[in-house]
Amino acid sequence: MWFKDLIRSKRDGATLPPPQWRRFVAAVTAGELPDYQVAAFLMAIYFRGMTEEETAALTEALADSGDRLTLGAGPYVDKHSTGGVGDKVTLVAVPWAAACGARVVKLSGRGLGHTGGTIDKLAAIPDLDVSLSGERLRQLADAVGWAVGEAGALAPADKILYALRDATSTVEALPLIVASILSKKLAAGAPALVFDVKAGRGAFAGDEASARELATALVRTAHLAGRRAVAVVTAMDEPLGYAVGNALEVAEAAAALRGEGPADVLGLSRAVAAEMVILAGVVEREAAEEVLDRTFASGEAFGKLEAMARAQGAPADWLRRLPQAERREEVRAGEEGYVTAIDALAVARAANILGAGRMTKEDAVDPAAGVTLHRKTGARVEAGDVLMTLHYDDERGLEEAQAYAAAAFTLGPRPAPRPLVLDVIREDALTGPAR
Amino acid sequence: MWFKDLIRSKRDGATLPPPQWRRFVAAVTAGELPDYQVAAFLMAIYFRGMTEEETAALTEALADSGDRLTLGAGPYVDKHSTGGVGDKVTLVAVPWAAACGARVVKLSGRGLGHTGGTIDKLAAIPDLDVSLSGERLRQLADAVGWAVGEAGALAPADKILYALRDATSTVEALPLIVASILSKKLAAGAPALVFDVKAGRGAFAGDEASARELATALVRTAHLAGRRAVAVVTAMDEPLGYAVGNALEVAEAAAALRGEGPADVLGLSRAVAAEMVILAGVVEREAAEEVLDRTFASGEAFGKLEAMARAQGAPADWLRRLPQAERREEVRAGEEGYVTAIDALAVARAANILGAGRMTKEDAVDPAAGVTLHRKTGARVEAGDVLMTLHYDDERGLEEAQAYAAAAFTLGPRPAPRPLVLDVIREDALTGPAR
Repeated sequence: MWFKDLIRSKRDGATLPPPQWRRFVAAVTAGELPDYQVAAFLMAIYFRGMTEEETAALTEALADSGDRLTLGAGPYVDKHSTGGVGDKVTLVAVPWAAACGARVVKLSGRGLGHTGGTIDKLAAIPDLDVSLSGERLRQLADAVGWAVGEAGALAPADKILYALRDATSTVEALPLIVASILSKKLAAGAPALVFDVKAGRGAFAGDEASARELATALVRTAHLAGRRAVAVVTAMDEPLGYAVGNALEVAEAAAALRGEGPADVLGLSRAVAAEMVILAGVVEREAAEEVLDRTFASGEAFGKLEAMARAQGAPADWLRRLPQAERREEVRAGEEGYVTAIDALAVARAANILGAGRMTKEDAVDPAAGVTLHRKTGARVEAGDVLMTLHYDDERGLEEAQAYAAAAFTLGPRPAPRPLVLDVIREDALTGPAR
Repeated sequence: MWFKDLIRSKRDGATLPPPQWRRFVAAVTAGELPDYQVAAFLMAIYFRGMTEEETAALTEALADSGDRLTLGAGPYVDKHSTGGVGDKVTLVAVPWAAACGARVVKLSGRGLGHTGGTIDKLAAIPDLDVSLSGERLRQLADAVGWAVGEAGALAPADKILYALRDATSTVEALPLIVASILSKKLAAGAPALVFDVKAGRGAFAGDEASARELATALVRTAHLAGRRAVAVVTAMDEPLGYAVGNALEVAEAAAALRGEGPADVLGLSRAVAAEMVILAGVVEREAAEEVLDRTFASGEAFGKLEAMARAQGAPADWLRRLPQAERREEVRAGEEGYVTAIDALAVARAANILGAGRMTKEDAVDPAAGVTLHRKTGARVEAGDVLMTLHYDDERGLEEAQAYAAAAFTLGPRPAPRPLVLDVIREDALTGPAR
């Protein structure tokens, strides 16, 4: 009865106080509320919205629904991406930030749908163990600078709500998105959070305005929950880098850290790493560029990727032993011109059909499968040039993947450049005077 | 998947075509949709509304979800009340209309909550059988003029949706209310419908504006569904008549038909019966007053109540054998003044606590229990005058009932009259020029 009244209150536009959000989440966690009532409540939220205080209260309650990591003192910072195609920024920016003195316990999920998960990418590294306890992750982060684990037990109430939102077309409610993302970050324990909010065809937020809205809400709500936070809003129209697929992306991230990598991966990782080290308090804003350049040039940034992999069980020659697909197929240009767009969603679909991703939670992933691009947006192409290579072991989806791949590239008479980092949202810029 | 897309479409404000409404209702009827998806859909409808065409399509689909009565040719007309306290208008208006030549197969439900159901009232008549087949009801209506049965099997999909709406605070969505009411009327087969839409403290619609809105939507949607329809909007602030409780109300209805009844019951029943006979086509509007007066004065109207009761199994002396409660308790005025209000909801609660109604579907009803008022709004009262008599067999709820009864009357220094029939909504007045 109390919950039916709560549905009515939200339906009629009321602001619900924090104890009501706690009671709601406790009842969801305990399985005490029928799904149909929760679904109606979520739809009412979709229409009525939530204040930032309500969102913060829901976020805290969700974070409290399961385990919370205790990191203790130290320059801990966490990083979150809303998900992109070919997004290996974590594998570059986090070791780089660790090389500058930041500490990161990175808890990630497995990928679902068109974007991969960091855990899936790391699972391509031979023998790497991501099933570590929170205590062990903290020890490794203190010793090595960073560690990676599975986010399995964090915020279980969020999993229940997400499944219902997914089934009832209420995923897109902004405060629910914020609470879902942020609850797992709160549970992961870091006092400082850097968000990479993607905008574009391959991203959760389709346009820049809604990505900026999400970025702003994440930063404000994190602040209300007592966290320091920054969000970068970045373009996700074409895939990030040239590689899409788990082992392919790990190799590209390693190459980037060794100075061989694509400019977009390196540029975005550098921007994210800068915000991380500044927010962690290990480097002043004015010194950030110099410290980042120095740790990159010295090989310390790459060294932190190596150190994490070895600390979590990978053999010394893990990079040479990354799995490779047995078969390859090239996709060529049918005409000449400049690449004006590469549809990230189409590329992701091609890669996933080949085995790189999963459509349902039960699907197995082929770590070697994926797509490598040979041209990015702005490049000149002649008819017959190779645009893409498909990597696969199982040829069952090949024809469908080829169709997606062939449709992914758009050529035009002249290049159409677009910046990668679109905006940076900081709490002080939101509430205080502009700097 | 199709239904998740349907939720999204309605969420985003789309107008859904009739086949989608049919598919939705078919899936609900077959139990193919999870409750949580239906609940989210209902909440989206709450916020986005439905066009009249959508409402008509949903209504038809709900009507098609179970049995439909086939009445054949004849001056059939049906009557529906949105539910009031002491509302025995059906028991007066329907035999009266039958006496004028209209034919009525009245399918009613059992009461739930603060308003009683016609079936519960009739069940107070000794041996009266309401479990008749549709075919038998039609035969009786043709022979006697009217017949009464239980609406049990009509529009089963509406029952499923109503239970979900009740649990998810989506009862108040106007198009869902219209579809719920009208679907059962369509299934009951009459080509002409008269709605009595109550407004006030004892009614579903709390204020006159929302009652008028509901009345208008009922008439318009009935018209789209190919039915002739009229709605009267009537006040339900104080109980209708003096009696609240099943046997008490049957006795009052019989008294009204014999010219001994309260003015409000008679007046409203006359207005409803007039619309029924005009809509049924058995009397011209200009002749309605004269025909109604004649059939009343001649005893033919009362005769049709008798005829129905006898045809459905009641003994010749049924009226004298109506059950009476063993105990009575009077409620007296503590001060003098004019009755300015009698809270219908408080009176209903008192009656129900004494056994006249049910709070859950499983509750048994005491046909003899209830409340009789001794004064109505506008009457002069001296301190110590009896305001109400409580009729009961089981004294367990007596104290609580007394508390509700004592709080029901408001006295003031002068009478404050209010009309009973507030408005009449006709399709031709809605769409054509005013007459």
